[in-house]
Amino acid sequence: MSNTAESQTPTAAVLLIGNELLSGRTQDINLAFIAKRMDGHGVRLREARVIPDIPAVIVSSLNELRARYTYVFTTGGIGPTHDDITADCVAEAFGVALPHHPEAESRLMAYFKARDIEPNEDRLRMARIPEGASLVDNPVSAAPGFRMDNVFVFAGVPRIMQAMLDSVMPQLQSGAVMHSVTVACNLGEGAVASALRELQDHHPNVDIGSYPGKLQDTFRLSLVARGTDQAELDAVASLLRHTIESLGGQIFH
Amino acid sequence: MSNTAESQTPTAAVLLIGNELLSGRTQDINLAFIAKRMDGHGVRLREARVIPDIPAVIVSSLNELRARYTYVFTTGGIGPTHDDITADCVAEAFGVALPHHPEAESRLMAYFKARDIEPNEDRLRMARIPEGASLVDNPVSAAPGFRMDNVFVFAGVPRIMQAMLDSVMPQLQSGAVMHSVTVACNLGEGAVASALRELQDHHPNVDIGSYPGKLQDTFRLSLVARGTDQAELDAVASLLRHTIESLGGQIFH
Repeated sequence: MSNTAESQTPTAAVLLIGNELLSGRTQDINLAFIAKRMDGHGVRLREARVIPDIPAVIVSSLNELRARYTYVFTTGGIGPTHDDITADCVAEAFGVALPHHPEAESRLMAYFKARDIEPNEDRLRMARIPEGASLVDNPVSAAPGFRMDNVFVFAGVPRIMQAMLDSVMPQLQSGAVMHSVTVACNLGEGAVASALRELQDHHPNVDIGSYPGKLQDTFRLSLVARGTDQAELDAVASLLRHTIESLGGQIFH
Repeated sequence: MSNTAESQTPTAAVLLIGNELLSGRTQDINLAFIAKRMDGHGVRLREARVIPDIPAVIVSSLNELRARYTYVFTTGGIGPTHDDITADCVAEAFGVALPHHPEAESRLMAYFKARDIEPNEDRLRMARIPEGASLVDNPVSAAPGFRMDNVFVFAGVPRIMQAMLDSVMPQLQSGAVMHSVTVACNLGEGAVASALRELQDHHPNVDIGSYPGKLQDTFRLSLVARGTDQAELDAVASLLRHTIESLGGQIFH
């Protein structure tokens, strides 16, 4: 891919919001899900931040990231309780009001009515949407996310977040899709490092990484090549296999 | 805890370094581990960032975070391959050289010798340590991490990272330890929101959160109170249980 094409490729950042992520109570799995969707759509995920439920931190992070990247995806903080302050912070970051959104309210009311849930003030807080934002569907529990300019605000519960992201994918610009190939072997990183370095030098448009790990108690080194040109990746994979064999290593299939 | 005590409590940020975290290939589990250790030691983890293997991004993130927090913990990028550039970036951020460290080199040589591994140039790159840094032990695979001023540089492989962190815990200032109590019930967030808000208003030094989830297919709402005063947490937990019962909810034990 040329540098021009890459410079036109949309970029993104993820903002994971919630004290529970910084206390270790909750293990985030949303970042990896969003990352894979971005690769498949040709959006470059450039960074992620994990921040607490502190309004000033959320607002400044939003403003920094939305100015820097094509898209920002937030997770967490859109429920009915006192620590759900993401909508308030997005409204503040954009300098707009946070009124009850009629369509959001009617979706909630229909959901509550069908389940015999009392539509109290706290539950209806979930209908507050920054002025000018469009709703993001929540097929799981009705309370919508929203899109404000280039910021997409999703729930933190993975099942809901995933449905919300999938529903907005058609709204995202698409760049060259990122592909990857993996060749796994039993060699140590130090054995292949020199060959990898040379391979990386010869293929500057491919991102080559090596990741040691274990599979069923057996050491396994995964050599991963990522890039937008599948033919080049296949060539790199072939060179990786050749390298492993020439070093006396075993390839895992 | 008084505000004075809290203002003297050490703070920290985590910098998770690696393209594999932003592609979704690798699911990070280091953040949650570090978070729990910080709570137990009385260090406040304020934020985490996930960034790619790009020198300028690593250097600027390091400089921003080390100026802002008492401690910065990095994970990833200290192996022998071309994409292992964390030591280079720390040296650049601090404006120091990156020589081979005699003690690091002798630890590596002993490890290699015992395993009949050839000490090639790539493997010895792992002995490059920023000038002025102290070593952090690696009981798993010898190649050390290091501490440079208030920045701790750890491996990305969880087992090694965990051993490295545990070995430096005695070096960290200790503040008031963060405790937590959890009361789980079958009520929805909207049912308890009003009572939680009032409880939070009455206990500003306690951080109250509510986290919906499932356990063995049964809906479960976890109400979590965090703070440094165990007696206050116990009182809050008692009030939470009373609230749940008065709303007709069931408490899970």
